[in-house]
Amino acid sequence: MKDDAFGVWEGEVTVALPDRFDAQLYFIGKVRTPWTRREQCPKNARESDAVCTLEVDPRYAQALTTIETCSHLVVLYWMDRSPRDLVLQNPRHYGELRGTFSLRSPARPNPIAMSVVRLLKVDGATLSVVGLDCLDGTPLLDIKPYFASTDSVPDAMVGWHRARQGAQEDVQETAPKKR
Amino acid sequence: MKDDAFGVWEGEVTVALPDRFDAQLYFIGKVRTPWTRREQCPKNARESDAVCTLEVDPRYAQALTTIETCSHLVVLYWMDRSPRDLVLQNPRHYGELRGTFSLRSPARPNPIAMSVVRLLKVDGATLSVVGLDCLDGTPLLDIKPYFASTDSVPDAMVGWHRARQGAQEDVQETAPKKR
Repeated sequence: MKDDAFGVWEGEVTVALPDRFDAQLYFIGKVRTPWTRREQCPKNARESDAVCTLEVDPRYAQALTTIETCSHLVVLYWMDRSPRDLVLQNPRHYGELRGTFSLRSPARPNPIAMSVVRLLKVDGATLSVVGLDCLDGTPLLDIKPYFASTDSVPDAMVGWHRARQGAQEDVQETAPKKR
Repeated sequence: MKDDAFGVWEGEVTVALPDRFDAQLYFIGKVRTPWTRREQCPKNARESDAVCTLEVDPRYAQALTTIETCSHLVVLYWMDRSPRDLVLQNPRHYGELRGTFSLRSPARPNPIAMSVVRLLKVDGATLSVVGLDCLDGTPLLDIKPYFASTDSVPDAMVGWHRARQGAQEDVQETAPKKR
């Protein structure tokens, strides 16, 4: 293990990342939440009714026009405190290795988190939403309207998770205690 | 209008983007689809049963471990042919301006597209999926398991879209004919 916060656990596998990046991002604002330490974050966004806010940079205020007609939004944000080179992970040190792309862990080549949130209120360039579980101050990347017709799949299944539900494993491991 | 492909239409508003980027991305592979020109792309991913493939860079092959247990995936990809400075847009030139963050248009500060796909098959580092509508060769950014518990909201509404459904407007404007 390298260190307490971002160590590599037994059996986990890292790869050498490319020498160069391929594209670049702007932070368009900040996510404000009640949680300032990782251990405070809800294990799963659906466990919390906490109202969080999306503070959009005034530069992009006009881009929020007509967003108040949306009941739900897709929010993309940047989990920049995680290692990007892990391909096999040991979520919460349970002893079962899984591939990064079959997990919602923040440790991934491009640490872009995706959450579906309910929109409560629009006040200038600030949106009040329910459904986030990230740290206060997390950089915001994008906001999109959520279309049930293309985005909602009520009967979707994640086999590895269903098999472990008895173990009360979290769905969204955006706030793992051990990494 | 600047040019046929990426012009700014009447009433549309652009902003000055920041001088510097804030974060960087790796392309982790490519999306292979049957569509090589924008006008060929389905207007809406749900209109097409075309099988597309996600070709993941062999570097990340192990990150696909246990993904075959997922029925559906969230796919993030990079729409790099679009302007990033538009905040008010005139989708398909219909005469109604909408904010970029209330649209799924590829023209946005960070042109990250999100699609929910059905996973058909995993063959090495290649995934066969249904539900994409982008151009062949589109750079891939991330693959995540789709959890119905947090990602599915069957009754979500987009008010501006519902009001216009009589006009047969597209939901996903990832392949607009006029930009």
